[in-house]
Amino acid sequence: MKAEIIAVGSELLLGQIVNSNAQYLSKRLSELGIDVFYHTVVGDNEGRLVEVLNRALERSELVITTGGLGPTMDDLTKETVAKVLGLPMILHQASLEHIRSFFAQRGRIMPESNTKQACFPEGAKILANEVGTAPGAVVEAGGKTVIILPGPPFELKLMFEKAAVPCLTQGHAYQGEVILSRVMRIFGKGESTVEELVKDLLEQQTNPTIAPLAQVGEINLRITAKGKGKAQAEALMSGVLGELEKRLGTIIFGYDDQDLETVVGQKLKELGFTISLAESCTGGLISSRFTDVPGSSAYFQYGVVSYSNSAKEVFLGVKEDTLLTYGAVSEQTAREMAGGIREKMGTTLGLAVTGIAGPDGGTPEKPVGLVYIALASAQEVMVKKFQFGGPRKNIKLLTANAALNLVRLYLLSLESKYSFRRGDN
Amino acid sequence: MKAEIIAVGSELLLGQIVNSNAQYLSKRLSELGIDVFYHTVVGDNEGRLVEVLNRALERSELVITTGGLGPTMDDLTKETVAKVLGLPMILHQASLEHIRSFFAQRGRIMPESNTKQACFPEGAKILANEVGTAPGAVVEAGGKTVIILPGPPFELKLMFEKAAVPCLTQGHAYQGEVILSRVMRIFGKGESTVEELVKDLLEQQTNPTIAPLAQVGEINLRITAKGKGKAQAEALMSGVLGELEKRLGTIIFGYDDQDLETVVGQKLKELGFTISLAESCTGGLISSRFTDVPGSSAYFQYGVVSYSNSAKEVFLGVKEDTLLTYGAVSEQTAREMAGGIREKMGTTLGLAVTGIAGPDGGTPEKPVGLVYIALASAQEVMVKKFQFGGPRKNIKLLTANAALNLVRLYLLSLESKYSFRRGDN
Repeated sequence: MKAEIIAVGSELLLGQIVNSNAQYLSKRLSELGIDVFYHTVVGDNEGRLVEVLNRALERSELVITTGGLGPTMDDLTKETVAKVLGLPMILHQASLEHIRSFFAQRGRIMPESNTKQACFPEGAKILANEVGTAPGAVVEAGGKTVIILPGPPFELKLMFEKAAVPCLTQGHAYQGEVILSRVMRIFGKGESTVEELVKDLLEQQTNPTIAPLAQVGEINLRITAKGKGKAQAEALMSGVLGELEKRLGTIIFGYDDQDLETVVGQKLKELGFTISLAESCTGGLISSRFTDVPGSSAYFQYGVVSYSNSAKEVFLGVKEDTLLTYGAVSEQTAREMAGGIREKMGTTLGLAVTGIAGPDGGTPEKPVGLVYIALASAQEVMVKKFQFGGPRKNIKLLTANAALNLVRLYLLSLESKYSFRRGDN
Repeated sequence: MKAEIIAVGSELLLGQIVNSNAQYLSKRLSELGIDVFYHTVVGDNEGRLVEVLNRALERSELVITTGGLGPTMDDLTKETVAKVLGLPMILHQASLEHIRSFFAQRGRIMPESNTKQACFPEGAKILANEVGTAPGAVVEAGGKTVIILPGPPFELKLMFEKAAVPCLTQGHAYQGEVILSRVMRIFGKGESTVEELVKDLLEQQTNPTIAPLAQVGEINLRITAKGKGKAQAEALMSGVLGELEKRLGTIIFGYDDQDLETVVGQKLKELGFTISLAESCTGGLISSRFTDVPGSSAYFQYGVVSYSNSAKEVFLGVKEDTLLTYGAVSEQTAREMAGGIREKMGTTLGLAVTGIAGPDGGTPEKPVGLVYIALASAQEVMVKKFQFGGPRKNIKLLTANAALNLVRLYLLSLESKYSFRRGDN
C-alpha cells in the first residue's frame, strides 16, 4: 500500500513550527509495513489544497491529512476532502454532543462556530478525539482511503494510535508486512571509505536495504528489513548486520540511540575502571558529555579545564620545561597532562586533549584544528595527533568524538587481550 | 515570488529525522519577504523526484532542494535537476580542488566517488560548502531558479546564509520590500509573565509584529518589521525595541545569535575580569559554553569538574566538616566551592554549581533538580537556590543558563554602581 501525508497549515510554511506530525506518522506507518512516498505541506488555501489532494489521490492508495480541523474559517481540510471526493458534508450528531459536553465540562457553552467540527464527508467513519474538540475521520471512496487527523501533536498521536491504527491494520488493503529499521553508527572512517567497504551490499541488497547517511562527526548506515511477520524481518536484519559487522569491525561503535559517551561509559562500568579528564581545547565538552549519561559518577568524578600554562603546571604537573620546549599544543604536553591527571586523581585512566580550536591562535607549524589526544593507563601513555577543520564548535565536537573513540578502542583492545588470555587457560 | 521547498531523503519518509531544514528555510524566506507555498518530501528515487521537480517548476518561480548531494549512488538531486531542466552535468574544477584539499587537510586522499560532488548542471553558480564536501548550486533556467542545498542542517544553514541569501536578495525577482527580523532573548521570567508585560503590544502591533516563542530555558520575542527600504524598516524596528526594553529591562540578555555565554564573555572582557569555574552537576557544560566563544581564554582559563567529595576537598578546599554537616548539595558547599576556586586560581570571580541532575540520587529533602549556584568576588559570595525539572540533560542546561545569568546580572549591577559613581564625580 502506497501512502502519503499532507499537512495543512500556514504556520508550517512560515517556519513557525516543524512538521513533527509527519515524522511521527512516517515512523509508525513504516513500523506497520506501510510505505510512505511523499510528505506535502500546504497552506490554509482551498485552491492549493484541492490541487494537492487530487495529485495525492492519483498516486497513492492511502492519504493522511493533518491539521485544518478547527472551528474557524481558515480550517477547511474536511470540506476540501469532501469536495475532491464529490461527497456532501453531513452533521454528525454524536460528535456535536461530544463537543458540547467537552465545553460543558469546562464550565463553558459551546460557541456556534464549533458546530463545524461535527460535520464530515458523507459515509465517513468518525475517529473520536479524547483530548480536544476536533474529531477525525476515515473516508473511503473509489478504492482510496483518506484519514483526517487533527494538527496538535498530542491530539494526533492519541487519535492515531487509538482509532486510526485499528482501522489500518484491519482494513482490506493491509498487507501484514513488518518493517524493522536499525541505524548502525560508525566512527573513524569517511563516508566514501565506508561505502567502498560495503559497496556490493549497497548495490545488491534489496531486502534489507542499506542506506549511508553522513552526520557531523560520524557515519550512519540505515538498515531496513521487510518481512511477513516480525520473526522473518528480524532474521533478515540479523543476517545483514552480521555481514556488516564482519566487514566494518570496530569502526562500528553502536546502534540507534547509543552515542559514544554511552558506549564508553558502559564499557568503563563493566570493567570497573575510572577515568579523569584534562581538557584544553574542548573546554569541558568531553566532561559534559561523559556526565550526560545517567550513572556516570560511577566511573567519572573529576575533570579539569586547563587553558593556561600555569594551570597545566599546577594542577596537572606538566613540567615547565616541556611547555617551554614543545609548547602547550604538543605530543609531549598531552602525554604529561594525561599522566598527570591520572596520577593526581588515582583513576584507572587519564584522558587529555590539547589543541587549537581557533579561529585565532594558529601558526604555519601549528594550524587551527591541530589536536593531540593522550590516554594514560598504568602501563603506558598513548598519544594521537589529529588535524580537524571547520569553525570552533566543530573542532571541539570532532575532538570530543575522537577522544571518546580513542578510549573506546583502548577498552576494546583490553577486552580482546582478556578474552585471548581466557582462551589460553 | 512564489517559492517551495523540496527535501530529498528516504530517512525523512521513514520518520528517522524531522524536516527541520524546511522549517529553517521557511522562516528565513518569510523574513526575506519570499512566500513559501509548499513543502514536499520525496525519497531517493529518480522517477518520483522528476515528478516532484516538474510539478514544482510549473507552479513556483523559486524551488529550493535540500539533501541528496553526497558521494553515493543514492544521491541524485543535482543529476535529476539537470535532467528536468535539460542541462548536461559538468565537472567544476575549482570544487574538485576544494574537495581534494578538504580531504588532504585531514591527512586523507579523496576517494574517486567524491568526484561526483564537484559535478553540476551546466551554467550553475556554485555555492561553497565551508564545513563539508558537498557544494551547493543556484541554477537558473526558463525564468525559474533552483537552489540546491546539502542535507546536514549545519552545512545547509551556513551555505544558505553566506551564499544563497546574497543571491536571493540581489536577484532580479526580488521585490525590494525590506523585512527586518530581530529575536529578543529573555531569561529569568516565564512565558506568561513576559506576555502579560507586553500584552497590549502583542495584540495591537501589526507592523512590526511581535511573536513570543518559548525555547528550552529562555523566552524569545521575534519582532518583524516591513518597510519600503531599509531605513523605514529600521525606524519601525527601533521604536518597538525601545518600548520593549523599557518594559522588560534586564531580563533581556541579548539579541539574535548572542547567547548568554557571549554576552557574559563580552562584559568580562570589557571589565578586564577573569573567572574560574567549579562544576558538579553540570559536569563541564558551563566551561564548555564559556569556551565556545572565540577569544574566551582572555577571561576563562580554568575550570574543575568535581563530582566526588574528595575532589571538592582537595582541589577546591571545601572543608570536610561542611560536606559532612550540610552535604555536597548545599548552600554552604556551593559557597566554599566558589570561594575556593576563586582563591586557588587568583581570578576576579569564582563560579560554582552543585546539584542533583538525576535521574537517581534525589531524596525528599533534596529532590532531583535541586541546585545551588554561588558566585564569589573579593567582597562577597552570593548563593542562589533553584529547583529545576525535566530529564538530566534539561537540568544541566537550565543550571548552566541560570549560572551564566547570575554572572550577567552581577556584572550589570557593577556597571550601574560604576556609572552612578561616575555621575557623582
